[in-house]
Amino acid sequence: MAHYAIGLDFGTNSVRALVVDVGTGEELGTKVAEYASGSAGVLLDPRDPHLARQNPRDYVDGIEQSVRGALEAAATRPGFDAGNVIGIGVDTTGSTPLPVDAAGRPLAFDDRFAENLNAQVWLWKDHTGYAEAAEITRTARRMRPEYLAKCGGTYSSEWFWSKILHCIRVDPEVAEAAHTWVEIADWIPAILSGTDRPDELRRSICAAGHKAMYHQEWGGYPDEEYLAALDERLVRIRRTLPDRTYNVSEAAGGLTEAWAERLGLPARVTVAVGAFDAHLGAVGSGIQPGTLVKIIGTSTCDLMISPMDRELEDIPGLCGIVPESVLPGQFGLEAGQSAVGDIFNWFVELVGSRDWGHEELTAVAERLRPGESGLLALDWHNGNRTVLVDQRLSGMILGLTLATTAPEIYRALVEATAFGARVIMERYEEYGVPVDRIVNCGGISAKNPFVMQIYADVMGRPIQISRSAQTCALGAAVSGAVAAGPERGGPADFGQAVSAMTGIQDTVFEPIPENRAVYDGLFGLYRRLHDAFGVAGAGDDLADVMKTLLDIRDEARR
Amino acid sequence: MAHYAIGLDFGTNSVRALVVDVGTGEELGTKVAEYASGSAGVLLDPRDPHLARQNPRDYVDGIEQSVRGALEAAATRPGFDAGNVIGIGVDTTGSTPLPVDAAGRPLAFDDRFAENLNAQVWLWKDHTGYAEAAEITRTARRMRPEYLAKCGGTYSSEWFWSKILHCIRVDPEVAEAAHTWVEIADWIPAILSGTDRPDELRRSICAAGHKAMYHQEWGGYPDEEYLAALDERLVRIRRTLPDRTYNVSEAAGGLTEAWAERLGLPARVTVAVGAFDAHLGAVGSGIQPGTLVKIIGTSTCDLMISPMDRELEDIPGLCGIVPESVLPGQFGLEAGQSAVGDIFNWFVELVGSRDWGHEELTAVAERLRPGESGLLALDWHNGNRTVLVDQRLSGMILGLTLATTAPEIYRALVEATAFGARVIMERYEEYGVPVDRIVNCGGISAKNPFVMQIYADVMGRPIQISRSAQTCALGAAVSGAVAAGPERGGPADFGQAVSAMTGIQDTVFEPIPENRAVYDGLFGLYRRLHDAFGVAGAGDDLADVMKTLLDIRDEARR
Repeated sequence: MAHYAIGLDFGTNSVRALVVDVGTGEELGTKVAEYASGSAGVLLDPRDPHLARQNPRDYVDGIEQSVRGALEAAATRPGFDAGNVIGIGVDTTGSTPLPVDAAGRPLAFDDRFAENLNAQVWLWKDHTGYAEAAEITRTARRMRPEYLAKCGGTYSSEWFWSKILHCIRVDPEVAEAAHTWVEIADWIPAILSGTDRPDELRRSICAAGHKAMYHQEWGGYPDEEYLAALDERLVRIRRTLPDRTYNVSEAAGGLTEAWAERLGLPARVTVAVGAFDAHLGAVGSGIQPGTLVKIIGTSTCDLMISPMDRELEDIPGLCGIVPESVLPGQFGLEAGQSAVGDIFNWFVELVGSRDWGHEELTAVAERLRPGESGLLALDWHNGNRTVLVDQRLSGMILGLTLATTAPEIYRALVEATAFGARVIMERYEEYGVPVDRIVNCGGISAKNPFVMQIYADVMGRPIQISRSAQTCALGAAVSGAVAAGPERGGPADFGQAVSAMTGIQDTVFEPIPENRAVYDGLFGLYRRLHDAFGVAGAGDDLADVMKTLLDIRDEARR
Repeated sequence: MAHYAIGLDFGTNSVRALVVDVGTGEELGTKVAEYASGSAGVLLDPRDPHLARQNPRDYVDGIEQSVRGALEAAATRPGFDAGNVIGIGVDTTGSTPLPVDAAGRPLAFDDRFAENLNAQVWLWKDHTGYAEAAEITRTARRMRPEYLAKCGGTYSSEWFWSKILHCIRVDPEVAEAAHTWVEIADWIPAILSGTDRPDELRRSICAAGHKAMYHQEWGGYPDEEYLAALDERLVRIRRTLPDRTYNVSEAAGGLTEAWAERLGLPARVTVAVGAFDAHLGAVGSGIQPGTLVKIIGTSTCDLMISPMDRELEDIPGLCGIVPESVLPGQFGLEAGQSAVGDIFNWFVELVGSRDWGHEELTAVAERLRPGESGLLALDWHNGNRTVLVDQRLSGMILGLTLATTAPEIYRALVEATAFGARVIMERYEEYGVPVDRIVNCGGISAKNPFVMQIYADVMGRPIQISRSAQTCALGAAVSGAVAAGPERGGPADFGQAVSAMTGIQDTVFEPIPENRAVYDGLFGLYRRLHDAFGVAGAGDDLADVMKTLLDIRDEARR
């Protein structure tokens, strides 16, 4: 008898549900539900470009719409029976926390706060806490340098404590009403399984470890002395946080009767502990030690795992090294590029005309030979996440002549993102995490052989493409199946689940030796610009230029 | 009784004649004649992008068409009488030499060579001699460093000897048939006055001094030993060159009967010795010691003069320091930017669409505040003429973000050209040539207050605009009037002529203090990038990057 798992993938603008055959990985039905509020699901403040919030109601409504839709689609397959769904896995964006009351109810559901943006979900790309992030970094550097070592040396404005501290500073009323803050990745499994009371909520190691400075080494979340040095009011929040966390092979609980009815599923279906989209995307792409999974979209996540029975030193510039954040028994290692598809889209917008869209630019750009344009770019239009961990870097194009064309620049931008990808790969290898194979997933991977070939040529490795078009949802389904366990008809462990349920496409992009040689030369130049503009005191001393430009810009805009 | 002078201004694509009242500067009639041959007057070779030649017949035909047209236009004015034209002045592009036979007749007029591109006029922007230019520079550095000191330290592929040497190397038949080579600036006055036999032809100090290494200090043109070290065959050419040269206050001769009839002018009208367009443009803009005249078009020339009775040291990076190349009794100093309008046009072409032309970009860009975009560019899309004298530099844009717009980049490019202009101004001042005022002329100056205000703010000086819309032709007319002299009704000297015939517009662009302060900061950054990428060993050691990119590009195209 076939068994099924459902993956729930909460993105920035919509949620996708995917019904998967646990034995074969076959995807039987899927459905996307758009978030209803704000601008494509994001609540904005015209006066503050850093602000990005979401309505928690959209998440709740999205579960029902997407799961029901996916089950309806699956039901058209002969033999499918929703009664054989054994597990649900959940992935979300992150760090995306929301404030809740002592009962675990979002403050946003309270009439007092319904219209208050600070009481909503603080979306990952909300950067309102940039000053607090700098303060958290500074204070850690002084008091707790070990806290920074596991998150690349700099605490981000996108992360848990930056957002809470910012709320405390700008909206004490919300901050006081908040009993605690919960990552949406933890909140969704909790509400599905009725375990959303703060004292019983199972928080994931993925969110806690990568975004909230949680680490076994120092006893979990950051200590009260450190938090008090930032703001006394953080201590009360700290006391609401548990001493242990859970990984995605563990269950948050069983589906409640109410939700079972709402979704048309059996009650007590296992709901797995949640994780971030990239981490379960890596699972859906078949991650194993030695595999670099690149999830390429508007930005990238570059994930690897490394066995916990082997010593692993800190890797400077990585977003995080967290035990079991991807798979049990493995360190989860997260790196990423702040913008990839976003840069290509930006350029198409810039030259947007009757003549040039992505397809037209690609058609000309792919006929150019590496190096032919004389162009070199830095892919820092949205800062640099890995290995420089610096939001205040910017993009650059060099080598322009009066004959430079739009497709040449387009190609140079693609190449720049490939160089950025190579920097990340080399950083992994330099610190003892060898890359044996690369699996790319995400829209660009599946649809853009031009970009993938350049990645193969620049990185000098074969590039495989994940078989599924929705690897995050698939990875979530895998975790649902594993959490359900063999006694319910699920796989014995992640190893078995990944083999059975994931795979790669037949087409593999092999490096072309001539191209690779040229790109080795260009990469040498890229690396010099990278260090000159990105690393203070790295020899070519131009490291302050971009920041001074930003200061001048900020001054002018004031 | 009013007297008139005619200015003949030979550009890259057409020739303009301008009839001017010698007493008032009033412009009575003008006419432009397009060159008939090639692509807008330029003969091209699809296999060699460096090649740019012209048909000497186009020049001859252009004289008649333009002068007759200008006189017809002037004749509509009450009281005008072509019989009162007293002088003709001539300016041309340069270095633009052509090979002639022993009688002074262009080889191109010989059936044997009519179709041979090497027998035509070698237009200023012909860069086929780039390897020979490097050889000339290297050899001079070794044998005659003083030759380089007066032309900025590097001999250009655009100049006289590079072109002749290249012809010797690639087309010995043309090279042997050429008795000598004549700048078109010298050839036009010579044919008009029937003095085109090589042994009586009056060569201008402007062309000889700026482009052919002519200097009194070492006895005129470069010596035979040096030329023989380059190629024995240059020695024969050297022997056809005279020991002295002439400035634009001197006459090449009187208009021949034949030309007088062809043009509808009195015979024996004085024909002044020729000069380059920029130099007479500076005259038409009212140049005097302390005045920096910027002739702004696709590229710029930045001219100054300095009294010859004052010591003047060599100025590194200047295209030339030549006694009397602009006015008698004054050193003529030439600097320039390799691309200005060309860069703006390039960008409009790049983003060309329904939405963005020059006007639309300007309308948005002029509302931006200095520094607001966070962008900084290097204006080296066509190399850098002054002060780096390096064709193999390229343009750059830095500070790009996902929010960067086309008008922001457009403005950054305008600012970059203004920074480039400031580097030139500061170089003049650093070497004892103070800039008291700046007069801009050329199309961009007259039509683009947005650009002019940025120049005022960046350079920190008031910017005046030349009154005439055709300053080069006006300057040529001034030289025609001066050469004719007071006994024919002309002015006593250039001082008098310039006062009477030239002027500036009422609108002066004053620096805005707030903008100036921001631009001082940006200029500091520009200067660092300028030195880092343009000057080897200047501290920020990135000087080889752009060249390595070009090498890689050339390799890829091979």
